Amino acid sequence: MAPAEDMVANPPSEAEETASAGVANTSPISTVLIVIAMHTEAAPLVSKFELVEDGDKSMFPKGVPWVRYCGKYKDLYINLIWPGKDPALGVDSVGTISASLVTYASIQAFKPDLVINAGTAGGFKAKGASIGDVYLTSAVAFHDRRIPIPVFDMYGIGAKETFSCPNLLKQLNLKVGKLSTGDSMDMSPHDESAILANDATLKDMEGAAVAYVADLLSVPAIFLKAVTDIVDGEKPTAEEFLQNLVIVTAALDQAVTQVIDFINGRCISDL
Amino acid sequence: MAPAEDMVANPPSEAEETASAGVANTSPISTVLIVIAMHTEAAPLVSKFELVEDGDKSMFPKGVPWVRYCGKYKDLYINLIWPGKDPALGVDSVGTISASLVTYASIQAFKPDLVINAGTAGGFKAKGASIGDVYLTSAVAFHDRRIPIPVFDMYGIGAKETFSCPNLLKQLNLKVGKLSTGDSMDMSPHDESAILANDATLKDMEGAAVAYVADLLSVPAIFLKAVTDIVDGEKPTAEEFLQNLVIVTAALDQAVTQVIDFINGRCISDL
Repeated sequence: MAPAEDMVANPPSEAEETASAGVANTSPISTVLIVIAMHTEAAPLVSKFELVEDGDKSMFPKGVPWVRYCGKYKDLYINLIWPGKDPALGVDSVGTISASLVTYASIQAFKPDLVINAGTAGGFKAKGASIGDVYLTSAVAFHDRRIPIPVFDMYGIGAKETFSCPNLLKQLNLKVGKLSTGDSMDMSPHDESAILANDATLKDMEGAAVAYVADLLSVPAIFLKAVTDIVDGEKPTAEEFLQNLVIVTAALDQAVTQVIDFINGRCISDL
Repeated sequence: MAPAEDMVANPPSEAEETASAGVANTSPISTVLIVIAMHTEAAPLVSKFELVEDGDKSMFPKGVPWVRYCGKYKDLYINLIWPGKDPALGVDSVGTISASLVTYASIQAFKPDLVINAGTAGGFKAKGASIGDVYLTSAVAFHDRRIPIPVFDMYGIGAKETFSCPNLLKQLNLKVGKLSTGDSMDMSPHDESAILANDATLKDMEGAAVAYVADLLSVPAIFLKAVTDIVDGEKPTAEEFLQNLVIVTAALDQAVTQVIDFINGRCISDL
């Protein structure tokens, strides 16, 4: 028997049965999975949506550091998953491997109708990005998976258009741009060439991995990315990132709240 | 009710209950998970161990291309998992994201006592590697996850010693070396510096990801890597890799068979 708090964040079983392939276009969105890589990015949303940390550790296997915050906000069952702190080193489990694992395990466990990957990113001023801008991404790709064999090269890049949300975009004041993902915070010359080829405005460490898994499992996914540092600027990325992380997170969280408020009561096809 | 062929590749339930934390040191190894990224590498072993493709698609979620070959060989239940062909592009789903996802899902589904990641790799002649050599790796690390923030830098590198198998090493004629993993087949100057810092003899695209997941879930894992190309040689990696893939795979498969024969009837602590 599931504990009471678990019931709160799970939809009725009828909804669960259809959720893995997305709710029917005519049913309102019921369950949302929010994937956020860093605790600093997640904490304000946990508070805003009055989510509680899931005490039932059986949702994920023993040993993984993943943390689920869940609750009902308006008509939505929200599962916010943070990959947690690395068990050996105590830092946030950032990057594509953790992001893909938690997205996979959470889609299996919670059958969301929609995945939202929210996080901070580097932005390119040459593409119009400024510190604090929040973007809804139009496409994702990888920039650090170079496989120079025909077709494998395209697999490595993994370019994908993301789920289209014209009404959400019209309603909210969000910028639109392409996102390029890699497991490094810095940018090597090889990364830079690939990011240019990906026509990216944004650079992060998780987005394309979340998109890959959501796509495999046929769940629509959207990507909200707030700019903490200017990649083609003068300051070192890590320094600028740490300096702006908390203040930019506030802009990100405001955008996520607006998106959740917009989604509430709407069908996937209304986005 | 599980179909008959499924029963063949699963141990009795008593063994299953203890398997996720490894079998007791005094019980013989019962279930083995072999993770192999490419079909060309997997096919001879499927044939050698007389494994059959699992017809029960319910072991993995709908939509994933992962393929399970299973069967009983001597006293061992063998699950060989190949991440399958990318649904959109039709090439093998190589790299760290697919490797970590299939390792996670397969450990959850089959509760193996031991994970074996077998595959081809680039080797460094400066470290003594030659085409066709098969290595048992002593340690793994990543070379393309640069995060220049204290402690995050170590998380990115993710260096880990692998499960120690002194008796297996003594018995079999395998070389020993460190493995460095990244999602590119080529090697950028940044990768090269990191591989040198990792003191690696071998370079692959999956090992450290499999190690990360096996370690999270407390399952011992060993890594058998056969050298298809010399990274610090004169030929372009992709060309040399494709040229040697089939012939080197024969050496790899021979080594995997020797390891499986050695494991049969032994306890984890006897390795």
